[in-house]
Amino acid sequence: MNVPLILSQFLDRAVRLYGEKEAIYGDNKVLTYNQLNKRVNQLSHGLKSLNVNKGDRIAYLAPNSIEMLEGFYGVLQVGGIMVPLNIRLKPADYVFILNHSESKVLLVDQDLYQLIQPVKDQLTTVEKIIVHYKNDDTNETGYDAWLSSFSAEKYEREYLEEDDVCSLLYTSGTTGNPKGVMLTHRNNYLHALSTMHHIRVNDQDTLIHVLPMFHVNGWGSPFYYTANGASQVCLRRTTPEAIFSALEKYKATVLHMAPTVLNTLMQYYERYTPRFEHSIRIVIAGSAPPPAFVTRVEEEMGWEFIQVYGMTESSPLSTVSTIRSHLDHLSAKEKYRMKAKAGYEMIGAEVRVLNELGYEVEPNGKDIGEVVVRSNGVMKGYWKNDEATAAAILNGWLHTGDMGTVDHYGNIDIVDRKKDIIISGGENISSIEIEGILYEHPAVLEAAVIAVPHEKWGETPHAFVVLRDKQSTTEEELISFTRENMAHFKAITGVTFIEELPKTASGKIQKIHLRNDYWEAKGGHDGRYVN
Amino acid sequence: MNVPLILSQFLDRAVRLYGEKEAIYGDNKVLTYNQLNKRVNQLSHGLKSLNVNKGDRIAYLAPNSIEMLEGFYGVLQVGGIMVPLNIRLKPADYVFILNHSESKVLLVDQDLYQLIQPVKDQLTTVEKIIVHYKNDDTNETGYDAWLSSFSAEKYEREYLEEDDVCSLLYTSGTTGNPKGVMLTHRNNYLHALSTMHHIRVNDQDTLIHVLPMFHVNGWGSPFYYTANGASQVCLRRTTPEAIFSALEKYKATVLHMAPTVLNTLMQYYERYTPRFEHSIRIVIAGSAPPPAFVTRVEEEMGWEFIQVYGMTESSPLSTVSTIRSHLDHLSAKEKYRMKAKAGYEMIGAEVRVLNELGYEVEPNGKDIGEVVVRSNGVMKGYWKNDEATAAAILNGWLHTGDMGTVDHYGNIDIVDRKKDIIISGGENISSIEIEGILYEHPAVLEAAVIAVPHEKWGETPHAFVVLRDKQSTTEEELISFTRENMAHFKAITGVTFIEELPKTASGKIQKIHLRNDYWEAKGGHDGRYVN
Repeated sequence: MNVPLILSQFLDRAVRLYGEKEAIYGDNKVLTYNQLNKRVNQLSHGLKSLNVNKGDRIAYLAPNSIEMLEGFYGVLQVGGIMVPLNIRLKPADYVFILNHSESKVLLVDQDLYQLIQPVKDQLTTVEKIIVHYKNDDTNETGYDAWLSSFSAEKYEREYLEEDDVCSLLYTSGTTGNPKGVMLTHRNNYLHALSTMHHIRVNDQDTLIHVLPMFHVNGWGSPFYYTANGASQVCLRRTTPEAIFSALEKYKATVLHMAPTVLNTLMQYYERYTPRFEHSIRIVIAGSAPPPAFVTRVEEEMGWEFIQVYGMTESSPLSTVSTIRSHLDHLSAKEKYRMKAKAGYEMIGAEVRVLNELGYEVEPNGKDIGEVVVRSNGVMKGYWKNDEATAAAILNGWLHTGDMGTVDHYGNIDIVDRKKDIIISGGENISSIEIEGILYEHPAVLEAAVIAVPHEKWGETPHAFVVLRDKQSTTEEELISFTRENMAHFKAITGVTFIEELPKTASGKIQKIHLRNDYWEAKGGHDGRYVN
Repeated sequence: MNVPLILSQFLDRAVRLYGEKEAIYGDNKVLTYNQLNKRVNQLSHGLKSLNVNKGDRIAYLAPNSIEMLEGFYGVLQVGGIMVPLNIRLKPADYVFILNHSESKVLLVDQDLYQLIQPVKDQLTTVEKIIVHYKNDDTNETGYDAWLSSFSAEKYEREYLEEDDVCSLLYTSGTTGNPKGVMLTHRNNYLHALSTMHHIRVNDQDTLIHVLPMFHVNGWGSPFYYTANGASQVCLRRTTPEAIFSALEKYKATVLHMAPTVLNTLMQYYERYTPRFEHSIRIVIAGSAPPPAFVTRVEEEMGWEFIQVYGMTESSPLSTVSTIRSHLDHLSAKEKYRMKAKAGYEMIGAEVRVLNELGYEVEPNGKDIGEVVVRSNGVMKGYWKNDEATAAAILNGWLHTGDMGTVDHYGNIDIVDRKKDIIISGGENISSIEIEGILYEHPAVLEAAVIAVPHEKWGETPHAFVVLRDKQSTTEEELISFTRENMAHFKAITGVTFIEELPKTASGKIQKIHLRNDYWEAKGGHDGRYVN
C-alpha cells in the first residue's frame, strides 16, 4: 500500500492522540490540538472562499505566532503552497518575492504591515491582504474577525501527491535576486521522520519556537513536534529575557537556534545564572559554533548541546553531531570539540565532502572540499529558475557551497562558505577556525573574520570584533592571541572593533556587509571581495 | 530530489559511520560492520554467479544466525526477494512455499537440512541449495567455502524502485495454504523510520535477536538496528538460559519477543533473580500480554515494557503503548494496565477499530470492532493471490482480522482474533480478557481460552491451563476464580489441564490445535469450531 506522505497527517495524529492536551502557547492564548485544528479548518475554509486552489501560493509575513503555526496546516490543507517571508527584509524585497512567487494572498502581522503598506501598489498578484492582530484603521481585513466567520468543521482536502510542492522558501542570497526553494510534502515529511529520531523529539517535549518559522519552516519543527504531540511555545520576541522567562514558565525542554542567539543566552546566563530543575537540550545550526560554546553550555549551564547542519535547499537538516557509541571513550575535551562540528549524516541522508576533482577528501581534518548532499530532503528545485537548479544539483547531489573537512572519525566540520574561505600563500584558511580561537579570548563577545588583500600572500585574515561589556583589548593583543593559538599563517593581521555584527533574521552573520564596511573605510572596492 | 527508499542504504550508513565497531555477534563469530558488509558483498557476487537476477526469490531456512542476517542485505543488493521460512513447519509446507514462491536458491542451516532433504525431489524451481555450517556428507554446497570464493569488493547494485518487492513472507494461516505477503522496500523502509523512533533505537543499543528473523523479517529489526549502528546478537537458541546469559555477556539493552517467550524469562527470573546494572527494555508483540506481565516486568525485574501491535501484512508494527505525556498523572496500576494494550498509532500509521457497519466503535473500552490499518507499512498484496489481497485490503484499509476495543483515552486493546471471539447469549466475550484473569491465579503458568458450544448460551468459554511447578488447583477453583474477578457471563465453565500449550515458532498460541483437542476428547467435530 502506498499512502502519499502528506504533512497534514501530522496534525491529524496530534488531534487524534493529543486532542485535549493544552499544547500550543502564544502571546495570550493557549490552545489544545483540537482547538488549533479548528482554527486550521477555519483558515482552510476561509482560503477556499478566496478561491485559493491547489498549487496557489499563500505568503506569510509574521513572527513566531500561533497564527503563523496554524498557517502551515491551513494552507497545506487546501493544497496551497506556503511562502513564509523573512521579516527582516526591505519593502522592495517583498515586492520581488511576492510578485515572483505570484502569491495570491498575503497574511501579515500588524507589527510588520508597515513593511508592506508603502509597496502595496506594486504587488501584481496579491489579491487579498489579511492582518493578524489588526489594530490600525487601514482598510485591510482583520484576521480574527475574518477567521471566525468560517466553519471549524473538517475541511474536505484536495487530493495531493507526495511530490507536490508545499513550501516555497526564498533564500536571502548575497548575489542577485532571492531564489525560491521548492520543497515537496515528501521532502518535508521524510526530513521530519529522520530529524525527530536523531534529536529525540517526543510528547514529553515542550519546544520554544525561538528559531523563526519563516526560516526553512523553522527547520521543519512545526511538522515533527506536532506529529509527536509535543507542546509548542510561539515566541514573538526572542530576547534572552523572553527566552529564559519562557524556559521557566513552560518548563521547556528544547530550543532550536543559531549560535549567535545562543551567544546572547550565554551572556544572560553569565549575568543571572538562572538554574532549571528540568533537562534542557538545544539544537544549533545556521553556522558552526565556536567550540568554546559547547563547553560552556554543557559544563556551566548543564544543557545538552546538539549541533546539526543543513541548508534551505535540503529541508534543511542532514547531519547531527551527537557522539557515536564507539567514541564515548574519548576525553571530554575531544568530545566537546567533536560536538561543535556538523557531525555525520542522519538516517536517510548521504553527505560527502568532495575535492575539486569530485573525490572525497582525505579524512585527516585538514583537506578542504565542498559539502554535497543526497537525500529526500533535497528540494525539487528553484521556482522558475532551472538554470540555478541545474547549477545547485549536479550529478544527483546538492552542492551546498559550504566548505568542510572530515576528521579521522568521519565527522564533517564546516570551515567556511565557499566564498568566505581565505586563500593565503596558497593555503586555504578557515575563517570559522580563526573565529573559534577569538571567541576564547575573554574580551571578545563576537568575532567575524573575512579575507582582505595582502601584497605578499594574496589574501590575509582580518577580524571584526565586538567587545564584551566593560572589557578592553587591542588589535595587537588579538593578533598575538591568534598567533599563539594557531599556525602563524592562519593568524589575523588586522582588527576592526565594532558595536554590533550585521546579522540575518535567523542569526547568521552577514560577512558581505563587513566586506563592504572594510572597503568603504579603505575608500574603494575590489571585485573579488564584493559579491 | 527523490531518492528511492532502498533498504541497502541502512547498511551503507552503518559501514560508513560504524565500520570499525564490533557490532555483530554470532555463535562463535564477532564482526564489525565492515566485515559484515564484506560478507554481504561476497554473498551478492555469489548469488549473481548463480544467475540470480532482479526479482528472483531466494529462500532462507535458518535460526537467528549471522548468515541469516547477512542474507537480507546480500539478497536485496542483487535486487532479489528474500523468502524467510518459518523453521517449525513440516517438510510438505516447505514444498508448497518454495514451489509457490518459485524460489531459485535455498539457503538452509545444517540443523534444519533434515526438513528439506526428504522432499528435495519435489522442489520444482530450486536450482541450488547452500548449507550454512555444513557438516554432513550430502552433496550440497557448503556456505563458508562457497562464500569465500567470491570477491568482497563493492557490488554494483541493480537499480531498484522503492515499490519493488523485497520480502515475501508466508503467513501460517490456520485455513488453506499459506499466503505470501509481499513487502516492498518502501514498506520496510518507512516502517523502520517510524518504529526506530517510537522504540528509541540508537547506537548505544545492543539488541539480542530473540524474535526469529524469519518472522516478518524479525519485525524489521535487521533494518533499523543496522541503520542506527547498534550492536546485534544473533541467538541461535532462545532458551531462558541462553537469553539471560547473553544479557549478561553483551550488556544487551533491548529484546523483542512474544508474550509466551517473556513468560519463560519471568519464570527463570523468579527462580534465579538475576540483576543487571544496565537498563533493559523489551518490546512485546505477537499477542496481547496478560496485564500482570507488565507489573512483574517493570516492578520486579526493573525492565521497561513496551507493547506494540502489528501483523505480517503491515511490516508489521502500527501501534505502540508507551504512556502519553498527558496521561502521566494516572495511577501506576492504570498505567500498567494501559501498557499491556496495543496502544495507539505510530507516526505514519492510521489505525481504527470499526464496527460491522464500518463506523468507529465508541471509545468506551467495551464495544468490539475489527482493527483496520492504513500505512506505508501495509503490504503490496499477496503473491499470486489477488482474491485474498482484495479480501484483506478493502477501501484502502488493511482488515487485520483482529478484534479490539478503544478506551476513553483512545488506546486500542486487542481482545481476540475475529474467529476466536466467544459469543455467549448474544454478548461478545474476549478470550484474551479471561486469560488475563487466569494469569493472575498463583497456580497458573499458562492459559488459553476457546469457545465451546453451550445449549443455552450458544457458546461458552473453556480454558486450557498449564500449571506451575509444584502448584495445584481444581477446575472448580478456577471457575470460581474467574466468576469472582469478572462479570459472571464471561466466566469459564470448564477447564482442561495440559502439559504444554501448542505454539507457533514465534510464540503464538495455536488455538486451532486446542479446538481439535477438545473435539477429539468429545469424539467429534463441529464445523464452526474447526477452521
